[in-house]
Amino acid sequence: MPRYAYVNGAYLPHKNAAVHIEDRGFQLADGVYEVIACIHGHLADERGHMDRLERSLAELDMPMPMDRQTMAIIMRELLRRNRTQNANVYIQVTRGAAKRDFPYPSKDLQQSVVMTTWSFNYDNQPKMEKGVKAVTVPDIRWKRRDIKTTALIAQVMAKQKAVEQDAYEAWMVDDDGFVTEGASSNAWIVTKDGTLVTRKATTDILRGVTRTALDAIRQELQIKMEERSFTPQEAYEAEEAFNSSAVALVTPIVEIDGHKIGNGKPGKVTLRLYEEYRAYVDGLRGEQIGWKA
Amino acid sequence: MPRYAYVNGAYLPHKNAAVHIEDRGFQLADGVYEVIACIHGHLADERGHMDRLERSLAELDMPMPMDRQTMAIIMRELLRRNRTQNANVYIQVTRGAAKRDFPYPSKDLQQSVVMTTWSFNYDNQPKMEKGVKAVTVPDIRWKRRDIKTTALIAQVMAKQKAVEQDAYEAWMVDDDGFVTEGASSNAWIVTKDGTLVTRKATTDILRGVTRTALDAIRQELQIKMEERSFTPQEAYEAEEAFNSSAVALVTPIVEIDGHKIGNGKPGKVTLRLYEEYRAYVDGLRGEQIGWKA
Repeated sequence: MPRYAYVNGAYLPHKNAAVHIEDRGFQLADGVYEVIACIHGHLADERGHMDRLERSLAELDMPMPMDRQTMAIIMRELLRRNRTQNANVYIQVTRGAAKRDFPYPSKDLQQSVVMTTWSFNYDNQPKMEKGVKAVTVPDIRWKRRDIKTTALIAQVMAKQKAVEQDAYEAWMVDDDGFVTEGASSNAWIVTKDGTLVTRKATTDILRGVTRTALDAIRQELQIKMEERSFTPQEAYEAEEAFNSSAVALVTPIVEIDGHKIGNGKPGKVTLRLYEEYRAYVDGLRGEQIGWKA
Repeated sequence: MPRYAYVNGAYLPHKNAAVHIEDRGFQLADGVYEVIACIHGHLADERGHMDRLERSLAELDMPMPMDRQTMAIIMRELLRRNRTQNANVYIQVTRGAAKRDFPYPSKDLQQSVVMTTWSFNYDNQPKMEKGVKAVTVPDIRWKRRDIKTTALIAQVMAKQKAVEQDAYEAWMVDDDGFVTEGASSNAWIVTKDGTLVTRKATTDILRGVTRTALDAIRQELQIKMEERSFTPQEAYEAEEAFNSSAVALVTPIVEIDGHKIGNGKPGKVTLRLYEEYRAYVDGLRGEQIGWKA
């Protein structure tokens, strides 16, 4: 069974799916992306991801390449063709293909839209039982981390450093010694008194869609939260630590830079938030247009 | 006559030249590039560009995708097929196409190599007579500007700001108020006493190949040079200002942020360096393997 990708209006066999060599996404990283988890046929936080996609594009003076309803239909058609209800959906939008030059080309240029899916079993997640390790690395990224561009080389390098140290995620640390976020996730700790701490969403970090959902959930659960910066040292001494992202959902961190966090097992608050987030995704049926087999 | 591009072993009609949607260059900006001017059939500073390409790749733990002699042959074959001796040659090397994931994939993955050329008449350069305008913008880039990656979105945004102000180049200014470099060039000024000033080549800027050649040339000409940071204010009050790059060569700047530089015309030192650089490119026949019709 061939796997399909969507590229500029066509559903193509994945292996033949290509973009022009002068696509500004390829030559200049002049584009943005989103990843949405499809769990049990529901696209998790679809509206939040579309909001952020539209905002990222707007910050680069680009419109949405199509209306949301059309994008929603394409995502579902691609999931249907790829015969999966448990997958990640990847959406990339670039300014299009044009003769290489730095300034924005004509507004009439057709934007490129690429979508792929890859199957992922969200019900079998060993990392929820054991937790994962993180290491800290200097945050060497640009200053507009709130825009979800594909200029990801710094994150690639950070994540590689993590892998080389047998860790799952790299927490990036700014010049002032504070954690910004993970290479592909937001970073959280839980203090001894059970307060959630995560960095304020300025231009220093990506405003995670899952982060926003977790904020709503913790309010319902009446868990205190502080939006503030914290150091690796504070994280080492925290009761719990975790990452959040569209793909990681809520992933317990049990070790940072070799320091065991809490008792070295996934924390109670972390696991509670994970369960509630899973329920939120499954339960939000009014807001979802999940494809069902 | 079709125009050709080189893509992973094949010379393809330009309009059909494509890379896979999961090329890490497209999804993660996990690759580097070079642009080399071909002037009168000579590839300007070819050795310097190959040195820098190899260095950029090494900083990202990638080898050269082929030996230099092979790359030299492909560049010349592409120029021959495109029937041009006056052109820019663009070379892009990425880590290759693999299932999207941040860490480096297997070392066995085939890297992607893309080359294009576009004709450019280096003998008809009105900007040498009139000079160009520059504006300053905040430098919001990452911290490894010495690596020539395709994660160029900050430069795209900077250059767009320049164009919107009817300027040719954007000079980027760091948090301490000093000029780093142009969005696609190195930035130079000439002081009242005829000293060249340009920023020291640390990780804060790209070590321009043309910059290095100009350093050698000015030594022969016994022109003093200081490698140090300077502010926009010092530039406004300078005798001359110019950019250097593989494509811009030496481009006089006659206005910065609305301030007329010197007498508002291309400066003498600037024009001398331009002439000498042109002669250097034409004269370096021993080092060049220029294609001749």
